Amino acid sequence: MAKLNPSFSKLKSEYLFSTIERKLSDVKKNFTSTRFLNFSIGDIALPLAPAIVKALCDAAEEMGTKQGLQGYPPTFGYPFLRAAIAEQEYRGLCIESDEIYISDGINSDAVNILDLLHPASQVGFLSPTYPAYLNSYLMSGRKKSLLIPCTEEQGFIPEPPKEHCDVLYLCTPNNPTGVAMTRSQLQAFVTYALEHEALLFIDSAYSCFVTSPDVPKSIYEIPGAHTCAIEWKSFSKSHGFTGLRCAYSVIPKTLKARLQGKKVAIHPLWEKRQAIKFNGVAYPIQKAAYAGLMPEGRAQTEKQVRTYLSCARQFKKGLLDLEQRCYGGVDAPYLWWKTPKEMSAWQFFDFLLEQCHLIAMPGIGFGPHGEGYVRLSTFSSEEEISLALDRLTTKVSPCILL
Amino acid sequence: MAKLNPSFSKLKSEYLFSTIERKLSDVKKNFTSTRFLNFSIGDIALPLAPAIVKALCDAAEEMGTKQGLQGYPPTFGYPFLRAAIAEQEYRGLCIESDEIYISDGINSDAVNILDLLHPASQVGFLSPTYPAYLNSYLMSGRKKSLLIPCTEEQGFIPEPPKEHCDVLYLCTPNNPTGVAMTRSQLQAFVTYALEHEALLFIDSAYSCFVTSPDVPKSIYEIPGAHTCAIEWKSFSKSHGFTGLRCAYSVIPKTLKARLQGKKVAIHPLWEKRQAIKFNGVAYPIQKAAYAGLMPEGRAQTEKQVRTYLSCARQFKKGLLDLEQRCYGGVDAPYLWWKTPKEMSAWQFFDFLLEQCHLIAMPGIGFGPHGEGYVRLSTFSSEEEISLALDRLTTKVSPCILL
Repeated sequence: MAKLNPSFSKLKSEYLFSTIERKLSDVKKNFTSTRFLNFSIGDIALPLAPAIVKALCDAAEEMGTKQGLQGYPPTFGYPFLRAAIAEQEYRGLCIESDEIYISDGINSDAVNILDLLHPASQVGFLSPTYPAYLNSYLMSGRKKSLLIPCTEEQGFIPEPPKEHCDVLYLCTPNNPTGVAMTRSQLQAFVTYALEHEALLFIDSAYSCFVTSPDVPKSIYEIPGAHTCAIEWKSFSKSHGFTGLRCAYSVIPKTLKARLQGKKVAIHPLWEKRQAIKFNGVAYPIQKAAYAGLMPEGRAQTEKQVRTYLSCARQFKKGLLDLEQRCYGGVDAPYLWWKTPKEMSAWQFFDFLLEQCHLIAMPGIGFGPHGEGYVRLSTFSSEEEISLALDRLTTKVSPCILL
Repeated sequence: MAKLNPSFSKLKSEYLFSTIERKLSDVKKNFTSTRFLNFSIGDIALPLAPAIVKALCDAAEEMGTKQGLQGYPPTFGYPFLRAAIAEQEYRGLCIESDEIYISDGINSDAVNILDLLHPASQVGFLSPTYPAYLNSYLMSGRKKSLLIPCTEEQGFIPEPPKEHCDVLYLCTPNNPTGVAMTRSQLQAFVTYALEHEALLFIDSAYSCFVTSPDVPKSIYEIPGAHTCAIEWKSFSKSHGFTGLRCAYSVIPKTLKARLQGKKVAIHPLWEKRQAIKFNGVAYPIQKAAYAGLMPEGRAQTEKQVRTYLSCARQFKKGLLDLEQRCYGGVDAPYLWWKTPKEMSAWQFFDFLLEQCHLIAMPGIGFGPHGEGYVRLSTFSSEEEISLALDRLTTKVSPCILL
């Protein structure tokens, strides 16, 4: 009988979302008229910007004409979008448009890049971090992995490991902690990578939220990064594209690694991988992304980003006023909240759900070092957050929380 | 230094398209006012149907409102689309909506399914066939493969191999030969699969073009298929979606294989794979696909399919009138043309390009058994094909062709 990939046995079942759903539905039965406030999902809360809606419609109508017919998109993305990204997002950073590869999401890029790695590579992952990197790594049957802890003592900032790694996945501003790495902290990883001839995979999904002056918005602001780093960025959070699916990889031509003993550029392998396994992103989606980079779309979407950041500040201030230990929220729309009274992540999740009708994300879903925390997403509104803080302040005695 | 996947060395460089481009550009220099007719690419030639354009615009506008906000799509597809496919495409075939998984293309599904297979699986591939299956298999580092020839003597219909395979990739109606398998021919493969406890992966990208009464439009018309077959279908050719990207996998719940000695259903593994590695298809694209299944969109797109088929008939008749050996074109928009005078595929490509200013696809791009053939795509127009046949008939002496 046909045999299946044994690595699937190593993957934890995705209890997280189904458990949240089950617990929520149980509690809702007893509170049928209560408004539940959901801060668990990192998904947009504002409608698509008008300039993006218009671009989608225009592209669709264009495709309905003989002159505007569009078939298979170019595998690496339309030149108009690649050029606009190089010009708008990488001005002065020495990234050319043909070093930018359009995709349907960072999630895809971050897991698909594994196709390029030697099976025996030693790969380092942050803990806590976005779980798809490690899960797809385990699914591929690879075994040599290293967890790099991000603890409260370190301010949740990772340090380059003492051990050798061939590849390191970083996520900054980090999901779930909401903490971003400064220039010097990133420089330490670039220095590590150059010393170890390692590759850095940088998930910059949240770079549009960066407000701290010493936090780079791109790894390519760091000297040396062009020879060791791949960066992923997305339109999901910067332009409200979670429901549209558009992101990109940046693979500088100067980035090299060893293929059967020979030092070779990496981008031709990615191009081959994509040519064989991917057929590109829909034309209207790429036109919409382009519109988001132009002045009108940029102004509209930057306003959305400021709204989410303002929610983060409001929520964080409220929690700090309640004397909570709460991190992030400055350069990212996430708060990382230490559970009070040594509660586990799930115990605190239950407490917030049952007592305040708030839904948080248990930190344990992001790796072992997420235990003892919950993540709050601030893709929300001032009104929702005020309501949440009211409940936390008035309905729940602060002494329970401390 | 970080090491790359050595399997990339085994992949042939993609000379095909770049060679075609180079040859075309060389010839064009000497014929600046000539109209070149391109039959090489299997891509749509008609604009998006009005009902699909409207659905795209409506969805975009909906997403621009507070009530119509759409974030991350469901990983497996929106229930409205999965239900419509089950109802419209699988009526009476015992396929439920939750056995249908929406994706961005058959290419993605056909290569991603490899994640589920045991590394030591023996996998059979047709020759000639769509090259992504084998290329992605080689990229994954797997080695146990078997080529199943489709020769002129067999009418390009494959036969179940004598050897054991754990998995067989079939493509029917076939790209590139344009030949489709009948009920009894498919039954032979289902019988093989049941005897060998093997899995069948059926690429049905061109099923909407089937006109022969004894050719099934779905593998699930064959008894036993629900316990051995995964089927892939796409909106690309049936609904003009190559520029929009929407397709689906059908994985019946009754489909099982062995995971570490235990017989298990396959669909939970696919669900896990997709949950980790894929974030779903854009909302407007799924709404557009849905519109294509409703009466108005269906009528408009079925007319497009009839146009492409009528082109195929016209072209085939013209070639047969010129006493050429030419196959396909009845159940698919492809013609498979035996090169005259024992020319190689590339020699005949050059002849057609230089003498008739026609661009064909050299059959060798689809595997070793494609040598000695070219593929003509009939995503075209009556006018273009008349012009092509005129050139073949009058400008080129028929004696050269024979």
